[in-house]
Amino acid sequence: MAETALQDRTAKQLRLLEQALDSGRLGPVKRLVNTLSPAEIGNLLESLPPHKRQIVWGLVDPEDDGEVLVHVGDEVREDLLKAMDPDEIVAAAESLDIDDLADLLEDLPDTVIDEVLKSMDRENRERLEQMLTYEEDTAGRLMNPDVVTVRADVSVDVVLRYLRLRGELPEATDRLYIVSRRRQYLGGISLAQLLTADPAVAVNRLIDSEQPAIDADTPVAEVAERFANHDWLSAPVVDENNVLLGRITIDDVVDIIRAQAEHQALGAAGLDEDEDLFAPVPRTTRRRAVWLGINLLTAFLASWVIGNFEGVLQKVVACAVLMPIVASMGGVAGTQVLTLMVRAQALGQVSPANALSLLRKEVLVALANGLVWALAVGSVALAIYRDAWLALAFGAAMVINLIAAALSGVFLPLVLRRVGIDPALAGGVILTTVTDCCGFASFLGLSTLLLMQ
Amino acid sequence: MAETALQDRTAKQLRLLEQALDSGRLGPVKRLVNTLSPAEIGNLLESLPPHKRQIVWGLVDPEDDGEVLVHVGDEVREDLLKAMDPDEIVAAAESLDIDDLADLLEDLPDTVIDEVLKSMDRENRERLEQMLTYEEDTAGRLMNPDVVTVRADVSVDVVLRYLRLRGELPEATDRLYIVSRRRQYLGGISLAQLLTADPAVAVNRLIDSEQPAIDADTPVAEVAERFANHDWLSAPVVDENNVLLGRITIDDVVDIIRAQAEHQALGAAGLDEDEDLFAPVPRTTRRRAVWLGINLLTAFLASWVIGNFEGVLQKVVACAVLMPIVASMGGVAGTQVLTLMVRAQALGQVSPANALSLLRKEVLVALANGLVWALAVGSVALAIYRDAWLALAFGAAMVINLIAAALSGVFLPLVLRRVGIDPALAGGVILTTVTDCCGFASFLGLSTLLLMQ
Repeated sequence: MAETALQDRTAKQLRLLEQALDSGRLGPVKRLVNTLSPAEIGNLLESLPPHKRQIVWGLVDPEDDGEVLVHVGDEVREDLLKAMDPDEIVAAAESLDIDDLADLLEDLPDTVIDEVLKSMDRENRERLEQMLTYEEDTAGRLMNPDVVTVRADVSVDVVLRYLRLRGELPEATDRLYIVSRRRQYLGGISLAQLLTADPAVAVNRLIDSEQPAIDADTPVAEVAERFANHDWLSAPVVDENNVLLGRITIDDVVDIIRAQAEHQALGAAGLDEDEDLFAPVPRTTRRRAVWLGINLLTAFLASWVIGNFEGVLQKVVACAVLMPIVASMGGVAGTQVLTLMVRAQALGQVSPANALSLLRKEVLVALANGLVWALAVGSVALAIYRDAWLALAFGAAMVINLIAAALSGVFLPLVLRRVGIDPALAGGVILTTVTDCCGFASFLGLSTLLLMQ
Repeated sequence: MAETALQDRTAKQLRLLEQALDSGRLGPVKRLVNTLSPAEIGNLLESLPPHKRQIVWGLVDPEDDGEVLVHVGDEVREDLLKAMDPDEIVAAAESLDIDDLADLLEDLPDTVIDEVLKSMDRENRERLEQMLTYEEDTAGRLMNPDVVTVRADVSVDVVLRYLRLRGELPEATDRLYIVSRRRQYLGGISLAQLLTADPAVAVNRLIDSEQPAIDADTPVAEVAERFANHDWLSAPVVDENNVLLGRITIDDVVDIIRAQAEHQALGAAGLDEDEDLFAPVPRTTRRRAVWLGINLLTAFLASWVIGNFEGVLQKVVACAVLMPIVASMGGVAGTQVLTLMVRAQALGQVSPANALSLLRKEVLVALANGLVWALAVGSVALAIYRDAWLALAFGAAMVINLIAAALSGVFLPLVLRRVGIDPALAGGVILTTVTDCCGFASFLGLSTLLLMQ
């Protein structure tokens, strides 16, 4: 994401805060922190090393504690919870909307969960328990059960009087839902319609049944797609009998979309978005070691390929000098195709028919670029080493590896998805293994053929 | 992004559509296409090779033409516009909201722009012209000037009667804005408040001035951050005199966040998100060639480093076999640190003070992992080549390169940002150049020292 003035301000706040912390003046720190929104406080806490984090966390207005906990990654949340008394945690949990509470609950100690449940009224407790029957990352967990419903047979005027009696509406309410006697979802009516309609009109004349309800077990990724495709601001959530359970609002969808983007960016490097930037060194070392270990295996594979050509390496040292170039160009070209394919897959833009068209296109592009760069690198090799056969092997290997890169870039994501592996996460490692091995094998193999007569 | 049922459905629709197209039955194609939302149609058109794309585009309901054009990437849009008569384009443009029209206008032929402007009433034309005075990717371009304003001194009842007279509200209206006589922004009042308040109360008693207005020249990336930090559904946009110009709604923000994520994912591979998946081969070849050329230069640099150690390569062929392992492990470890840093920067989580803490942590992690893997790879090398000095050089180079990777991973994004380069786009290439060169130099250098006595 591009640099913005806001990021600069956030970084500047961070600097001021760290200076104030270092000088021990907690008054200014407290004032600064409590001008921020809970999301911003969460962001700030994530940027602080553990000891400073705890100091600042102690200065946050207890009213905001719950919201801040909702806005930090899992690991930092654990860290913050450790510093709180059970009473403080219960108070923080009580201040939350029920959907945020459902999100937080799993991270709380069991005794605290009991306390929180006891402190709720029966209706809310039942709603919460119902939400928890749905799996994490489904609409049933994401929704807020706090909705305003009306019946179809009343007039707008009755609804208006009801709303005035009721007082405040749940946050981000943009429409009321119309339900049957058995609370089955029939459609919605927007606040804008209520405000502009003739009060004498019956609600069922205004009912908008265009917006289909979302099943409670729909994955959140699909919920996000549907919001984006239809420009929804909110959507009703129903159970398998079409009974209205709650609603999802777009601010939650924004959080999902941001989390997805982070998951993809970090996952491709073998990282987890819930990891604390300042996790203890031994924990971070262990985690990173897993990824390095996987990559070490693939590197040894490439190295084994090279080991099969010791003959030519011994005789022509230039082969050792030039071989990384062939491998690296294949990796770069293949990554480009892979990235395009992964994006197209995420948008549902790949079918067997167009995969074939894409393959044809990408192979042609690889061939064209292969020839261009073969000529370029071949000439350079010729100029340096004055060996036409070496230059030929170098150029030809470049063409071969770029075509192999295009083929893997198109096929790999298709195959990985078929076997249930996310190509956005694992694709890069596998692809570069292929292009490394193919690059080394083609160049050293051709060199053996052409130079070892 | 994870695979979802919706993506599968989208891909399935695509397959059905391609089958119908191949069999020449356009009736089913037309029916299928016109059950989709404009965003979905756009997505579908982007997935089709050019000749099929034009057939399907001809079958889209002309009413949706404008919205579909707004929802496709720049290149596909150009492609679609080429197939339309000026009259069709004018009709499509006329159907758009003014903010979407501002977005589309630049891609239209000049004669068509004149037609479109002529067809608008004076008020809308002036609004559009005002929007176009702001730069692309600023709030002034993103906003919709169509807002409902009220004065502070009237009662709720007056507002309610005004709204009934006015009829329909602009799409996604969640609050009315209160302005002074000179149209200066004073605050907002939500539809929910209007519905629940006592009609006799004056609007200025309910005014919510908590939401600060956004300056029209604020970059859209910052607008998105502010929406996400505050869970806004809409926000007022003002000029430098605090005069209300329009409002931004969260559905536009969702589009920005998605575009940012795409820009980052594709940009890191040297790709452009506005590129047509099926762009002609020569055009694609040229574009990819640029990125390959940059990478070729960095590959030659690494190759030049190797070339300085021909002596040891000639004598110890194992060096050629093992050297890519050192380079590759450095690249992987460095990419992890770089990815974390880029994310932290994007969230404004990096300050000079915590950069130092991060650096300390990352160097310690690199040292720990370096020692672990040095032992592992050293033992393997010893087992294969039975040469303790070689194993020592291999292990030591691994430690050195992982530490170099950690240092570059932390410093590179700081330096790049200071000089105005986006680390998310250029960081990876530079980092792997550093780790390749350092990996080759340290391993081959140590081998020369230890093995060439």
